[in-house]
Amino acid sequence: MPTPPNHSTAPVPAPAPGRPASLPPWHAPSPGARARFLAALKPDSNGLVAAVAQAHGTGEVLMLAWMNAEAVDETLRTGRVTYYSRSRRGLWRKGETSGQVQHLLDLRLDCDGDALLATVHQDGVACHTGRRSCFSWGLEGEAVAPLEPVLADPAALYGGAR
Amino acid sequence: MPTPPNHSTAPVPAPAPGRPASLPPWHAPSPGARARFLAALKPDSNGLVAAVAQAHGTGEVLMLAWMNAEAVDETLRTGRVTYYSRSRRGLWRKGETSGQVQHLLDLRLDCDGDALLATVHQDGVACHTGRRSCFSWGLEGEAVAPLEPVLADPAALYGGAR
Repeated sequence: MPTPPNHSTAPVPAPAPGRPASLPPWHAPSPGARARFLAALKPDSNGLVAAVAQAHGTGEVLMLAWMNAEAVDETLRTGRVTYYSRSRRGLWRKGETSGQVQHLLDLRLDCDGDALLATVHQDGVACHTGRRSCFSWGLEGEAVAPLEPVLADPAALYGGAR
Repeated sequence: MPTPPNHSTAPVPAPAPGRPASLPPWHAPSPGARARFLAALKPDSNGLVAAVAQAHGTGEVLMLAWMNAEAVDETLRTGRVTYYSRSRRGLWRKGETSGQVQHLLDLRLDCDGDALLATVHQDGVACHTGRRSCFSWGLEGEAVAPLEPVLADPAALYGGAR
């Protein structure tokens, strides 16, 4: 799971900003449908489900993080992926600091309701290290090493440029 | 996370059986490399990391389950994906009952070491319901429904046919 930036959560959910025109518009499910989706979840003892983000088109698995019911509901309502930050203990609207927003195309549950798969359009990079995917480390010969390139400068993403 | 079948774990790790000849052979990392991979993990308070399985070639996200250090080591050593079953409290060699084995092609860590991404060749289906992926449920209009077809009869997978 990537580390969210350490800042306070904005009190008001932002509407999905900058959704690319190439994407279909997000049609929020009705309140009743969202309530049924939430009822199908089986959160853990902390009220969380694991959420995997996969890139639309390329199929890259970008990251794994967590959602509580509020994050799932906001994600479905706004079409912008919102996680729950366990370190900050609050909603984490992906990209609110870095600008690396995830625009939702589909949200699936697994067979026992404790994990979600979000199909997303990723603005830029998903990883706080500036790599496209958080799953960028592995064995290179005898050592664990980053196997994917840095595509964006983390200092520019998180250094107050926004 | 899918529900593993409820049976005792075989005491001896099986070698990767039936790895398709179309796949590259699995070259187990050295004991030292495996130790360094394990040292890079940051398991949760239960000693577990989340593990996502993605299908080689198609990019389908098949399932999310958990691994402890022993499961990660066995997966790397045998090239056959082995999880840790939280319900059975033991190693879960995917496919040992159903035959729906996952043959490993690559294992990646995420940026903070608490999640893994396994690229696999999935024999048959990943989901205990007989669907290709566990992530087969979503909103269909106002209701949560399975959105993917059943490809294998669960009774044949788990009904003592093996």
